[in-house]
Amino acid sequence: MSFVGSGTAPDQPVRGRPRSEAVERAILEGTMKLLEDGVPLAEISIERIARTAGVGKATIYRRWSGKEELFVDVLRTAEPQDPEQLPGTSMRDDLIVLLESLRQRGLANRSSAILHNVHAQMKSSPKIWAAYHNSVILPRRRAGVEVLRRGQQNGELRADLDVELVNDIIVGPMLVRAVLRPEADLPEDLAERIVDTLLAGLRPVN
Amino acid sequence: MSFVGSGTAPDQPVRGRPRSEAVERAILEGTMKLLEDGVPLAEISIERIARTAGVGKATIYRRWSGKEELFVDVLRTAEPQDPEQLPGTSMRDDLIVLLESLRQRGLANRSSAILHNVHAQMKSSPKIWAAYHNSVILPRRRAGVEVLRRGQQNGELRADLDVELVNDIIVGPMLVRAVLRPEADLPEDLAERIVDTLLAGLRPVN
Repeated sequence: MSFVGSGTAPDQPVRGRPRSEAVERAILEGTMKLLEDGVPLAEISIERIARTAGVGKATIYRRWSGKEELFVDVLRTAEPQDPEQLPGTSMRDDLIVLLESLRQRGLANRSSAILHNVHAQMKSSPKIWAAYHNSVILPRRRAGVEVLRRGQQNGELRADLDVELVNDIIVGPMLVRAVLRPEADLPEDLAERIVDTLLAGLRPVN
Repeated sequence: MSFVGSGTAPDQPVRGRPRSEAVERAILEGTMKLLEDGVPLAEISIERIARTAGVGKATIYRRWSGKEELFVDVLRTAEPQDPEQLPGTSMRDDLIVLLESLRQRGLANRSSAILHNVHAQMKSSPKIWAAYHNSVILPRRRAGVEVLRRGQQNGELRADLDVELVNDIIVGPMLVRAVLRPEADLPEDLAERIVDTLLAGLRPVN
């Protein structure tokens, strides 16, 4: 279980051991320190993290099932959080908030050499990538598809479109800029411009 | 100079040394063999390639300025080529051909563990990535932006849109599916569906 993922949520039961949060923080920070020191992901073992954080291996295994889940939580602590609540005023507004949070992640990734490095290494490790995918990317995709379904219901989105494809159409341009083109502009109004351009279409209005 | 990049083009001057193409092929195949054997990019030196290909180091350096350029040519040999000519019948048709070639690359990447692996490793090596970016990605972007400019001139594309952003809007969804979501569908009509959805816009027509 992770302090980032669930430990701080207000609806969670109170921990039996009061020092639990401090211990988890030490483990997450110890792992981050190893990454900051340039140790490759592949060479960071639970044993080494335990040594750096000054805890026993069992203490780590009590909280994370393996190093993959631990890495994902380290990333989540370092990255901007996804929005917990969407405005709900319109599909357009919700999509802009979702895209804006991708832009924020892109900016964070650019300004942090460690984040950038970890992301790059993660792609070479199918297990870590799968853990990140399941706990970060998949929930974000589900939120996007949900917004689009509401848009089809209230008439903001063409009802004949496949929402899975529309989701890729919406996140695609932002991900290209934020992830695939590290030299590309990420201006403040980018989320809004993408969403409005997509809604109106590329064809001139006659 | 590379046999893939320019050596085989019909308008190139005839080589002084007749065995040149065979030598280049041996070097490219030797590098590919090392990758197939699972040797990490970082551990493949020009010396090791020379040994595997049965040539001298000088023979390699006569053709490539360094291992970055050589790797890029190995990738280009293994990946589907970009279209040399666009239909030119309409912006829509040209965009579909460009997106279809991204889809083909995505399919090739999925079916080839080596391609997939090299792409992942490349992201960790700024120099190789820069070489790939300059000789593969940048020309492809330029072709896309050129198609969009023609579309603005002939009235197929809204004249008030920033073509750089539109290019990301068009390639984004395909790249998300082909590169970032290796588990996503890449159906045959995907290029056409993306382009037509973008042209028409997501908003219902009243």
